[in-house]
Amino acid sequence: MILINGVEADRISVNDRGFQYGDGLFETIEVIEGQPVFLGQHLLRMSTDCAKLNIPNPDIKQLTDEIYRVCKYEKWAVLKIIITRGIGGRGYRQPEPINPTRVISLHPFPEYPHTYAKLGINARFCNTRLGLNPTLAGIKHLNRLEQVMARAEWNDAAIQEGIMLDITDHVIEGTMTNLFYVKNSVIYTASLHLAGVAGVMRGIIKRLIAEHNLTLIEHDYGKEKLLAADEAFVCNSIIGIWPVKQMGNVGFAVVNLTSQLQDWLRQFKEQSLADAR
Amino acid sequence: MILINGVEADRISVNDRGFQYGDGLFETIEVIEGQPVFLGQHLLRMSTDCAKLNIPNPDIKQLTDEIYRVCKYEKWAVLKIIITRGIGGRGYRQPEPINPTRVISLHPFPEYPHTYAKLGINARFCNTRLGLNPTLAGIKHLNRLEQVMARAEWNDAAIQEGIMLDITDHVIEGTMTNLFYVKNSVIYTASLHLAGVAGVMRGIIKRLIAEHNLTLIEHDYGKEKLLAADEAFVCNSIIGIWPVKQMGNVGFAVVNLTSQLQDWLRQFKEQSLADAR
Repeated sequence: MILINGVEADRISVNDRGFQYGDGLFETIEVIEGQPVFLGQHLLRMSTDCAKLNIPNPDIKQLTDEIYRVCKYEKWAVLKIIITRGIGGRGYRQPEPINPTRVISLHPFPEYPHTYAKLGINARFCNTRLGLNPTLAGIKHLNRLEQVMARAEWNDAAIQEGIMLDITDHVIEGTMTNLFYVKNSVIYTASLHLAGVAGVMRGIIKRLIAEHNLTLIEHDYGKEKLLAADEAFVCNSIIGIWPVKQMGNVGFAVVNLTSQLQDWLRQFKEQSLADAR
Repeated sequence: MILINGVEADRISVNDRGFQYGDGLFETIEVIEGQPVFLGQHLLRMSTDCAKLNIPNPDIKQLTDEIYRVCKYEKWAVLKIIITRGIGGRGYRQPEPINPTRVISLHPFPEYPHTYAKLGINARFCNTRLGLNPTLAGIKHLNRLEQVMARAEWNDAAIQEGIMLDITDHVIEGTMTNLFYVKNSVIYTASLHLAGVAGVMRGIIKRLIAEHNLTLIEHDYGKEKLLAADEAFVCNSIIGIWPVKQMGNVGFAVVNLTSQLQDWLRQFKEQSLADAR
């Protein structure tokens, strides 16, 4: 089921600025037994991103009603919300007033083997670099050509994620995930002030790290730091946390803190789902 | 009239990757008496950009037929062609095979006063910066949030264009135009290796400059070079060439080379239209 502005449909105006210019943003949410997981966090990030792009925030009550209408009866699925600046004329100038378009769609949950979360995944470095742009960094906007180009670099089913560097050789994130690494019991991740998406799951992991009095350092770092790490893991709202077991030739044998974080995430998710019921 | 894959329609699948990720590119073309101006140059740039994004080039014969179908009978209009990577599933991974979507639409020619071309326009510097990305620089792709954000900075009808710098303070282009300046009879423009759109009109002006044995220097330059120029002008396929008469507090009094280029462009355009008939 797809709802476009509250109505069941699967086609959008060609004059929608999402199509014309990628002028919008999106959220990707896990659905369990009709419940969108971490919905509050996703709606908060969506509102923050809308504000940054100067897109009026959708009516949250109305949006939430529509979300539950779409999720109802679903055992396990992926919910995608797209918000655009709505329909406009030719030219970059924004329409006045702005009537945002909201598209809510449901997708099958991807069939990832359980081993990915348990034993880890194989990752590679992508050649496609992330550009630098402080205005757009962090936002989950619809300008995603960099990720598309990076994901097109490999077809090998044995590789589950590609890691992207920015044009100044800093490691930023995976094509569809954020990336953390562990060295001497300290956790590190990229700071995302010039590139990258500040994922909801990344935010949750930051919170879990803080709540358990571990140290997180957000910084700019190069390949060599990652390759010398004790542990590395990627995350997003659909996969949760996947350890990286192999990065090119380099293997990561340890999953101490990674599996600890997976446990805490499981508990936090169960609590969050229980609270929402 | 809008043609989507050859069929009259005005709605597109929400699963089109143009809508999901801005995964595509576009062309904007002037139409005079049913003739798309500089169509050959636009189709060539489109093919080059398709190759860079790994989108299969549309069948040019079919596309040209559709373009003429849409342009027929139009006295003066703007033709827009959008090519996307077509319909795909959720996720950045590209569909296999890729069946590109083509959208051909016609729009009223904007009502620009004649004074813009004759006497020049007022421009301002935008605060929104262009990000740096060598992979995407030059391509007229659908990831246009930077231009949208920049164009939203001003509402003053007395200002016709905003000039964008990149994040390292180099002057790149206007929100919808390329920018040239003249100093001591030498013409300069930004090199676009890290940011900007390599416009078709920019290419034509480069050709006119070369044919008339003038000197063009493509380089990285800052605000101060532009503000110390003798002449400055912006260009695109719809407006042709507009002199800049005022840039913030700084005025440009001279239009020697600019009006010379306007003359050459007029002749080249007439010749090109005559050849196409």
